[in-house]
Amino acid sequence: MVNIDCKINIDEIVEKIVNKELKVYQLDKMFGEKNAVLIRRKYLEKVSNVKTNHIENYTIDEKLAMQKNIENMIGVVQIPLGFAGPLLVNGAFAKGEFNVPLATTEGALVASVNRGCSIITKCGGATVRVIDDKMTRAPIIKTNSVVDALKLKEWILENFLKIKEVSESTTRHGKLISISPILIVGRNVYPRFTFKTGDAMGMNMVTIATEKACLFIESELKKEGIDVDTIALSGNVCIDKKPAAINLIEGRGKSVIAEVFLKEEYVNKYLKTTSKAIEQVNTYKNLIGSAISGSLGFNAQYANIVGAIFLATGQDEAHVVEGSMGITTAECTKEGLYFSVTLPDLPIATIGGGTRVEPQNECLELLECAGTGKSEKFAEIVGASVLAGELSLIGALSAGHLAKAHSELGR
Amino acid sequence: MVNIDCKINIDEIVEKIVNKELKVYQLDKMFGEKNAVLIRRKYLEKVSNVKTNHIENYTIDEKLAMQKNIENMIGVVQIPLGFAGPLLVNGAFAKGEFNVPLATTEGALVASVNRGCSIITKCGGATVRVIDDKMTRAPIIKTNSVVDALKLKEWILENFLKIKEVSESTTRHGKLISISPILIVGRNVYPRFTFKTGDAMGMNMVTIATEKACLFIESELKKEGIDVDTIALSGNVCIDKKPAAINLIEGRGKSVIAEVFLKEEYVNKYLKTTSKAIEQVNTYKNLIGSAISGSLGFNAQYANIVGAIFLATGQDEAHVVEGSMGITTAECTKEGLYFSVTLPDLPIATIGGGTRVEPQNECLELLECAGTGKSEKFAEIVGASVLAGELSLIGALSAGHLAKAHSELGR
Amino acid sequence: MVNIDCKINIDEIVEKIVNKELKVYQLDKMFGEKNAVLIRRKYLEKVSNVKTNHIENYTIDEKLAMQKNIENMIGVVQIPLGFAGPLLVNGAFAKGEFNVPLATTEGALVASVNRGCSIITKCGGATVRVIDDKMTRAPIIKTNSVVDALKLKEWILENFLKIKEVSESTTRHGKLISISPILIVGRNVYPRFTFKTGDAMGMNMVTIATEKACLFIESELKKEGIDVDTIALSGNVCIDKKPAAINLIEGRGKSVIAEVFLKEEYVNKYLKTTSKAIEQVNTYKNLIGSAISGSLGFNAQYANIVGAIFLATGQDEAHVVEGSMGITTAECTKEGLYFSVTLPDLPIATIGGGTRVEPQNECLELLECAGTGKSEKFAEIVGASVLAGELSLIGALSAGHLAKAHSELGR
Amino acid sequence: MVNIDCKINIDEIVEKIVNKELKVYQLDKMFGEKNAVLIRRKYLEKVSNVKTNHIENYTIDEKLAMQKNIENMIGVVQIPLGFAGPLLVNGAFAKGEFNVPLATTEGALVASVNRGCSIITKCGGATVRVIDDKMTRAPIIKTNSVVDALKLKEWILENFLKIKEVSESTTRHGKLISISPILIVGRNVYPRFTFKTGDAMGMNMVTIATEKACLFIESELKKEGIDVDTIALSGNVCIDKKPAAINLIEGRGKSVIAEVFLKEEYVNKYLKTTSKAIEQVNTYKNLIGSAISGSLGFNAQYANIVGAIFLATGQDEAHVVEGSMGITTAECTKEGLYFSVTLPDLPIATIGGGTRVEPQNECLELLECAGTGKSEKFAEIVGASVLAGELSLIGALSAGHLAKAHSELGR
Repeated sequence: MVNIDCKINIDEIVEKIVNKELKVYQLDKMFGEKNAVLIRRKYLEKVSNVKTNHIENYTIDEKLAMQKNIENMIGVVQIPLGFAGPLLVNGAFAKGEFNVPLATTEGALVASVNRGCSIITKCGGATVRVIDDKMTRAPIIKTNSVVDALKLKEWILENFLKIKEVSESTTRHGKLISISPILIVGRNVYPRFTFKTGDAMGMNMVTIATEKACLFIESELKKEGIDVDTIALSGNVCIDKKPAAINLIEGRGKSVIAEVFLKEEYVNKYLKTTSKAIEQVNTYKNLIGSAISGSLGFNAQYANIVGAIFLATGQDEAHVVEGSMGITTAECTKEGLYFSVTLPDLPIATIGGGTRVEPQNECLELLECAGTGKSEKFAEIVGASVLAGELSLIGALSAGHLAKAHSELGR
Repeated sequence: MVNIDCKINIDEIVEKIVNKELKVYQLDKMFGEKNAVLIRRKYLEKVSNVKTNHIENYTIDEKLAMQKNIENMIGVVQIPLGFAGPLLVNGAFAKGEFNVPLATTEGALVASVNRGCSIITKCGGATVRVIDDKMTRAPIIKTNSVVDALKLKEWILENFLKIKEVSESTTRHGKLISISPILIVGRNVYPRFTFKTGDAMGMNMVTIATEKACLFIESELKKEGIDVDTIALSGNVCIDKKPAAINLIEGRGKSVIAEVFLKEEYVNKYLKTTSKAIEQVNTYKNLIGSAISGSLGFNAQYANIVGAIFLATGQDEAHVVEGSMGITTAECTKEGLYFSVTLPDLPIATIGGGTRVEPQNECLELLECAGTGKSEKFAEIVGASVLAGELSLIGALSAGHLAKAHSELGR
Repeated sequence: MVNIDCKINIDEIVEKIVNKELKVYQLDKMFGEKNAVLIRRKYLEKVSNVKTNHIENYTIDEKLAMQKNIENMIGVVQIPLGFAGPLLVNGAFAKGEFNVPLATTEGALVASVNRGCSIITKCGGATVRVIDDKMTRAPIIKTNSVVDALKLKEWILENFLKIKEVSESTTRHGKLISISPILIVGRNVYPRFTFKTGDAMGMNMVTIATEKACLFIESELKKEGIDVDTIALSGNVCIDKKPAAINLIEGRGKSVIAEVFLKEEYVNKYLKTTSKAIEQVNTYKNLIGSAISGSLGFNAQYANIVGAIFLATGQDEAHVVEGSMGITTAECTKEGLYFSVTLPDLPIATIGGGTRVEPQNECLELLECAGTGKSEKFAEIVGASVLAGELSLIGALSAGHLAKAHSELGR
Repeated sequence: MVNIDCKINIDEIVEKIVNKELKVYQLDKMFGEKNAVLIRRKYLEKVSNVKTNHIENYTIDEKLAMQKNIENMIGVVQIPLGFAGPLLVNGAFAKGEFNVPLATTEGALVASVNRGCSIITKCGGATVRVIDDKMTRAPIIKTNSVVDALKLKEWILENFLKIKEVSESTTRHGKLISISPILIVGRNVYPRFTFKTGDAMGMNMVTIATEKACLFIESELKKEGIDVDTIALSGNVCIDKKPAAINLIEGRGKSVIAEVFLKEEYVNKYLKTTSKAIEQVNTYKNLIGSAISGSLGFNAQYANIVGAIFLATGQDEAHVVEGSMGITTAECTKEGLYFSVTLPDLPIATIGGGTRVEPQNECLELLECAGTGKSEKFAEIVGASVLAGELSLIGALSAGHLAKAHSELGR
């Protein structure tokens, strides 16, 4: 390989790409992955007349990356990585203190989460539970009439076990747990295939399993004289990477709730505000402000924390969309503050996808969440971290308001 | 510095952190940013009993990063970077062919966008326009009664120019263009301050400007004997990083539309399908499937492309949430296919925030979009790229369906 | 009675009411229902100094009305009643031609529906199916922690049969078919009790049954040492008389789909337009226009037709809100037009509530839909009628557009 | 006339209708309205083999009704009419005590509202304001490209005054106050024409005015070489009789807020509960329950009260859909309870449409709200009545919960 590498005349190859004699995707096989990355970068530098110095710096295995994560690779971007913690988590799986890696370019975010971690930890930790866990795919199956659509729905309900067997034949880890709901619009049927996918995020797994099921359904229905036709493997009832009420209601990925109780004295001392003031800000901002805006996110900043953990740990960045939905509650009680975050839709993984990219995998390792059997633990940590970020921001807004009020009173 | 560095006994410092004699955020000033990054990483390795090898590899300037982008820095994550293109763009600002950098860990995404780029370019390019451009912040102002709330609303409308002057005094680039809508719920008022922020994304800018405006409003109303009180600077009518109809309707960040016309023969040749079939998939999946799911994203995969460009170019990852909203249209005409994407809410920047992180800035440079005066051009490229990804995926779903139909006919 | 009536000095009684010596609700028992109606009307006339001549004219049995439908009765309003038809319906229950009574004050509405009926009937009739049927009630049950909330959810799932027995003990007709979904937000649980209620709309029935179930759940959980507390019998996850995605997705009341195929020549002849033009109007108005507006109603005028039938037949007028949701589809095929309406949420009845009010009951009789065993038939007729109204309006919009186009070409 | 009437042989005519020799809509002119009503009823009785006795009983002027409100009239339905009150209203227009007519068949509704009225009146009355007032229509205007769509938008903004003049030429009362927002999806433009329509609900008025404006826009743009084409006069951005976030945000019809303060002792005495308990029920039911359901109605029963007043006073029943949206707030303060309802979308009238139907007009008279100059006053009374219904129901839920708690403690 070394010898061959030496003979590569990069300028010449770049010239060929410019002249369309070579395609950039052909380079991997012709020159090896590492060289291909280099050549493509040189090509881009040439056509844009820009010199790059940083995107070439990477330590990840480009061969693996190009097999699993990227095409036309030219290097990497570096996302600054910090951490927040320790955060005391009382989960069913995550128990103890964790230092949560966060990758972001938004200044003050890590500090904000860190402050929340500190307060929660002092107050006994975040109680967290994964209340649901599944991955979904809903194709569009077209029939000739609502009469057939209804027959199809009924056939699916009656033959669930057969469909389950067929679809699970494509996967070792995926388990079809239900096909629900089965929506019908006009004569088109949208059955929502719902799987357990273990520690993988599972979109690919469920897509393949659903495709097999669709072929089976089509052929079985044909035997009964009913024409059904899968128009598209995804009919947006799944619904992947789009904000939607169906995911808020039914859940998708991990559904996680985290909560903390803070005695009034700690609210006063650590957050410089009162339970009542926090409840008020939460009600008027997260609940009413979001309501009047037609929002599906009744919270302050879930997306910030979800986004930063997702990037740090190799989750799919587009799934931040789903993680942005959910509801924060704050209740002023006799003893102090009950504060919770409900995240119905966190598509996460501890194996597969971006989790195997080396730095991201290290971040999972730092949480002892890399690999099989760890996804629920990881989900609990994500939930607790979101709780920390949310408490910190709502507390700050509330304290800012109180501070202003005090200074006015002081005049 | 070198001498001082030599004297650092990392194990000792780590021990102090473990024993809570030192706080991790204090390290920056005590030992310099580079050492602080190292010490924190060693601390994490110790408490988690994990050895990291990759997150320490970075070329970005940690001092700058810690000033602007991250706290408690321990290194970076590397996001694999590829590119799609060339993509011919017929914008008002972006004119010509572009190679679009995409950072992702989702295999096949770059290939999918690349295919779309190729087809669009062959068919004459994507026509793109930025149809709106603004950044918003909506505080909650509490009054004593709906009577006062209405007076407050009217006062704001009457005194817009004064408020504009006050709020703009805090910023060189931000221009207050309207306060609209001014929502009232009960006795609380949510005025949506709407600014032009130039090439910066502008959230911080508009928050500071809005805060100043709120103080002014409070003090002026007090003179008129009306008590008003800013409960929180953000009341979620803004609405930042949450999916919401108000942003879909009113727009936020850059509002971008991209379209392409494909002659029927090209649809057949390049996409292996028909205009009619694409129209059908778009209607039943993107429009009806999303409708019945209660979604705000009437599209197939905006979030994937928006997410990958945002990461590549240093945009705020949590803003992918807003970029996931929008509507794809497909219309089978006599001549072929009209295909468009409408993205009402793309909060993007070519200066500030994560855009200055070195590799990300290089990606902007590759598009000739780094720095002042470039944000509209960049927005057009983002829009065209989303069009490419969307066309590719809807085309593939449609072709997959047709292929199946053909093979069935062939039996 | 007649003798007693004679002795009533109305002016004197009215005076007592004015002087607050008598309360208007006491009149029924003191003077009999008929007199009470009269006295109250006189009282209102006096305090408002207005003479009424029409609200006193009624033929309904005021005694029954006051027992079941109204308090403080003063008379009736008369809603003009017309009919549309004959409408040929090919349902599973409704088979044949129907003349649909419609009560409204909106001029042109009956004519519009009538035109749709005529076209549908000429083209072979509307195919209709009830695809789901249920009534729901979802209380809020508060627990001490998400840990308990999850236990409560699991307990409910495990003890469904017991809960079913308890809740069904309160009703002869109601059958608890599922408790799904069981939503959790923070530590509050919203189990959606789902019943079959036969031909009654069933809200009262399911409320009583759910209340019993909640008491049972509370007492059983207490035995297990878990404190749970029903904060409110309705927690808006039901969700009654409010527009909501959960009802669009899961259905409520009768879920009905109606469809019709029109040959292209009939579209041209009867609607003066083309399938393609209708498809286009439907896509840009009902699908895309509603999408960009953040709507849950992807249709043109469901509420008009649902409202007019609901009033004519004694349904609860506030349920028009739920009937306004749904999706209209139009597909231009080789043969002509496939047109459908999907109404996931029609809470209707053929017994109980307002259906027994005499004129309204007559309207049900005219459809042969009064009484037990008729609700599915009635639902199909409602669905077909909505189809008629929708086809007529979309056709008219499309034809209006075409007409304009033609007149322009003619210049 | 009497003589002619005598000669009508109804059976013969009915036979002709059955044999399709006569059409039911022809009867009005042939035999006069009164006879036509009778003949149609007889026809329906014959084909359905049902005898009706009640729908024929009416006192309204059938001639007027058939001109303005109904086609194919066969009689009326009688909706039971009660009243709630007195209700003390502190509006800008409605000042004093009102007895609110309510038409419904839902038992207990009037009683519930009446209880709310009583409490509010004892506590000093409902403060109400109309915060906005307008009627909207948004056509779909198709262009050739997003480039033209943007030009069209800009042209409309620049030529607002001309468009205003043209559109207002069609109406005496309608005033075009803005065209906002102007939404664009792909190459289609949805300009939302916003009018003041005085005391009329105004849908017809604004439709005609918008049609004229569209013709003007088309012809002017053609002069500039830009093809634009109004595909449909309503593009569902209006959005009429469908639930939608755009109306929640921007308002439509009258936007009304009503509020009341109740001292804690009155909450205890009259509602048998506490401010804190009411706040809690409101938060967990109206805010959070609706949020997790993907609802646009953050309230308990707006639709019930809006529906009953709408029917009583001749409003369009399908507009109950819009009136069902809105947000109830409850805040436990030091002094007691602040309680409010926000109804952004009440399309109401005091002239035109169903308001002239005789009994309905009498109901308006009872409120001194019939005719010109009364719509704002009427809107305030509607708002206050909704407040009464909402307070009563939330109070009852809360008290029921407290009662249970007490009885449990008593054991």
